[in-house]
Amino acid sequence: MSRTSTVKRRVDPRIERSRQVILGAALEELGKIGYGGFTIESVAVRAGVGKSTIYRYWPDKLALIADAFQTFHEDTLPDVKSGSAREKVARVLHHVAEIVASSTFSSCIPALIDAAERDDNLRKFYMRFQRAARRPLIKVIDDGVADGRFPPHIDPQLAAFALLGAIFFCRLMTSRRFDPDHVDDLINTVLGT
Amino acid sequence: MSRTSTVKRRVDPRIERSRQVILGAALEELGKIGYGGFTIESVAVRAGVGKSTIYRYWPDKLALIADAFQTFHEDTLPDVKSGSAREKVARVLHHVAEIVASSTFSSCIPALIDAAERDDNLRKFYMRFQRAARRPLIKVIDDGVADGRFPPHIDPQLAAFALLGAIFFCRLMTSRRFDPDHVDDLINTVLGT
Repeated sequence: MSRTSTVKRRVDPRIERSRQVILGAALEELGKIGYGGFTIESVAVRAGVGKSTIYRYWPDKLALIADAFQTFHEDTLPDVKSGSAREKVARVLHHVAEIVASSTFSSCIPALIDAAERDDNLRKFYMRFQRAARRPLIKVIDDGVADGRFPPHIDPQLAAFALLGAIFFCRLMTSRRFDPDHVDDLINTVLGT
Repeated sequence: MSRTSTVKRRVDPRIERSRQVILGAALEELGKIGYGGFTIESVAVRAGVGKSTIYRYWPDKLALIADAFQTFHEDTLPDVKSGSAREKVARVLHHVAEIVASSTFSSCIPALIDAAERDDNLRKFYMRFQRAARRPLIKVIDDGVADGRFPPHIDPQLAAFALLGAIFFCRLMTSRRFDPDHVDDLINTVLGT
């Protein structure tokens, strides 16, 4: 099913456009209503399409939400190829901070966190998604420690948890989102460089 | 009302015992059901008391949940008076990691995060609670930087966000809770000491 829709995306721009509208509506609905109250019907209304259009591509709400997250994520990946280790870390964190500070995606995070606690299938998707999302940062820090750019006492995975954790902590436990302009201060504090 | 109940607590151990049972039931219910479905009725059933007993002390579910969090928090505060700055930081983080790894309180975190997004009054309580809860850690790091125990490049507030953030990140974004035995590794990574 997902292979079919991928092929269709490439051949028919109207279908791809409709798909993007539906995925955007799914994120908006999730952020506004939460996972429990989220229905395909209300996404259809928000997107201005029929329910059957949605069911043609996604069998259920989990598949729709998972695709929305995955698509949003892939469309906004930062460059982690060029520059120094420090520049790469800064680029990834700036990207995460921007998204967490203001995006439809950000408004979905609390809903997903709570839903992951109560729905095993959503939890599996969400944990897999998060694991893949943080991998590039861990790799960049690991490379930086290996080539001496970052201090040797740094555990790359723990450093990634601390750096990303600070940004998400501000989003979820404080009344101010992490300011992307403070990424350098955060790196100075955690990586000491 | 809250003053009355404080006075009663001190004079009648049965009432204090009943209060503790109700507050514990409130946390269990919140962790299990979430904030949206949480009702005074179901807390009463869980605690084995009548609804009117609960309403005698708490006017609504927010007051009950706020009191449960506050009481749990005050009953478990770690010592931040004795020892070196590093020992104090370790003690606070160990305490947080233990609670986040396994407690009724921990199972409530996702529910509160989601509810804070949707209910302004809960949000106000939750943000105030979180701000007060992290203050001792920021203070201990600040003191450690001031007396040279921690490196001068460290921003105490950002370091606290990173340290606490790593623990909450593991709770909310990974499938493994932060192991309290790794607190020293986390401090080494973030505070470089």
